[in-house]
Amino acid sequence: MRDLKRKDKLIEAAGNAYGKTLSLATLDVCSDDSVKECINGIKDRHVDVLINNAGIGLVGPIESIPIEEMKKVFETNVFGVIRMIKEVMPDMKKRKGGHIIVISSVMGLQSVVFNDVYAASKFAIEGFCESLAVQLFTFNITVSLIEPGPVRTDFELKMIEDVRQRDCPGADAETVHFFKDIYLLSAMNIFEAVGQTPDEIAKHVKKVIEASTPRFRNLTNPLYTPIVALKYADETGDLSVHAFYQMLYNLGPVLNLSVILMKFLTCGCLRNRTVSPN
Amino acid sequence: MRDLKRKDKLIEAAGNAYGKTLSLATLDVCSDDSVKECINGIKDRHVDVLINNAGIGLVGPIESIPIEEMKKVFETNVFGVIRMIKEVMPDMKKRKGGHIIVISSVMGLQSVVFNDVYAASKFAIEGFCESLAVQLFTFNITVSLIEPGPVRTDFELKMIEDVRQRDCPGADAETVHFFKDIYLLSAMNIFEAVGQTPDEIAKHVKKVIEASTPRFRNLTNPLYTPIVALKYADETGDLSVHAFYQMLYNLGPVLNLSVILMKFLTCGCLRNRTVSPN
Repeated sequence: MRDLKRKDKLIEAAGNAYGKTLSLATLDVCSDDSVKECINGIKDRHVDVLINNAGIGLVGPIESIPIEEMKKVFETNVFGVIRMIKEVMPDMKKRKGGHIIVISSVMGLQSVVFNDVYAASKFAIEGFCESLAVQLFTFNITVSLIEPGPVRTDFELKMIEDVRQRDCPGADAETVHFFKDIYLLSAMNIFEAVGQTPDEIAKHVKKVIEASTPRFRNLTNPLYTPIVALKYADETGDLSVHAFYQMLYNLGPVLNLSVILMKFLTCGCLRNRTVSPN
Repeated sequence: MRDLKRKDKLIEAAGNAYGKTLSLATLDVCSDDSVKECINGIKDRHVDVLINNAGIGLVGPIESIPIEEMKKVFETNVFGVIRMIKEVMPDMKKRKGGHIIVISSVMGLQSVVFNDVYAASKFAIEGFCESLAVQLFTFNITVSLIEPGPVRTDFELKMIEDVRQRDCPGADAETVHFFKDIYLLSAMNIFEAVGQTPDEIAKHVKKVIEASTPRFRNLTNPLYTPIVALKYADETGDLSVHAFYQMLYNLGPVLNLSVILMKFLTCGCLRNRTVSPN
């Protein structure tokens, strides 16, 4: 954890495991020293499975986001992961074994409007891992990407609500309207209707760890498969661009209504479906 | 240009155009001030077509590359592009027209071993543009990605040769062997056999600018279509990882021989084939 003072909730959830099979350590993936200290604190620096879960989000018109703020997203979502991998990989290579898991996102495969920077950071780590997986194959080290869609936490819903209240300096009125009144509204409804819980994602990760031959890419939510399929069906990319444009800008209100309808019709059961990695 | 002192070769190539339809200006895409100054120097800040061509490469085992060096690649290839787009986009939106072109890479679609960081930067800008294209569609601003494979310049071949001479601190002997004796050798042969010239890429960009409805993604070299197809055919990503692994680690010498053979058999004519954007 970045801040061990916030460990109480985790310790409560861990129950008897805490102190037996679960230990906590301070880790800030944005700091070289912190990463080194954390791994040095593990017996023989022996890491069998590294799960890169730290990640931050950013949403909004790019006019309103200073480049320095964009870089912070990359610092955690890209360089934080690379820092961790660089620290454990040489030991894994020596032992000829290990499993590196990266919690990426469906937005690492297909970007979504107003998520330019977050998607860029997740795309980046996808590209990085595609290359790394090939190099590490010969050392019996597996690389697995987990691709969740929206994950439903009170924190995320509150974040979207906060963003809606905030100004978008530098952005034109039309863009701000689409962002706040159409996109954020859809996003909230989609989160509530089809968002998975952190627990579901954790169970999925466990399945990937336990698989005899883990896949490289692992989508956690079958509802997002069509979005990726749309991209893969058309190498020019025009199909995806136009479909997303139509969906949001011309059918925004219809999209919202249908998601809300879906939410009530399914009583949340859509959220509980996951794709088994087997 | 970053440094106007180096303009002589360009002026010579431009011939009569220089001073009439071609002007030069200083631009460092890594500097906010330089970007603003460059665009302010254009009459009414009016940019119809922005071509983001600046880019740097980086190749090698990640153990040997400090994170600070990786960040430099992102500074040019990702944030340099974003800086330029942020500077011209608001004016394009006001005028309801414009064309933003980004010279990406086939490695923005499918990563290649030992190109972890370069591919990550190109993946990032692909994700960024996927999102941006949807937002800008409503303002009649087109976003186009150009995806060249290897581009053959004396500079690139010299760079690969330089890298071969250099040490790879921190990397194990087996990885260094695969990198220098198998990968770099293949890369040089592939560059020579199927690399396109900068002139071919420029002609391709011109076609994209002149197209009545430019595509979002534009591959310049049909020889690379199968690589992307491999990825799109299998959502788990295992097909690509295994194919690349087999190709390099088990069939490395065969790959090299066949590329060399291809080079002589075709007398370079493979290099001249491009995919028309129409």
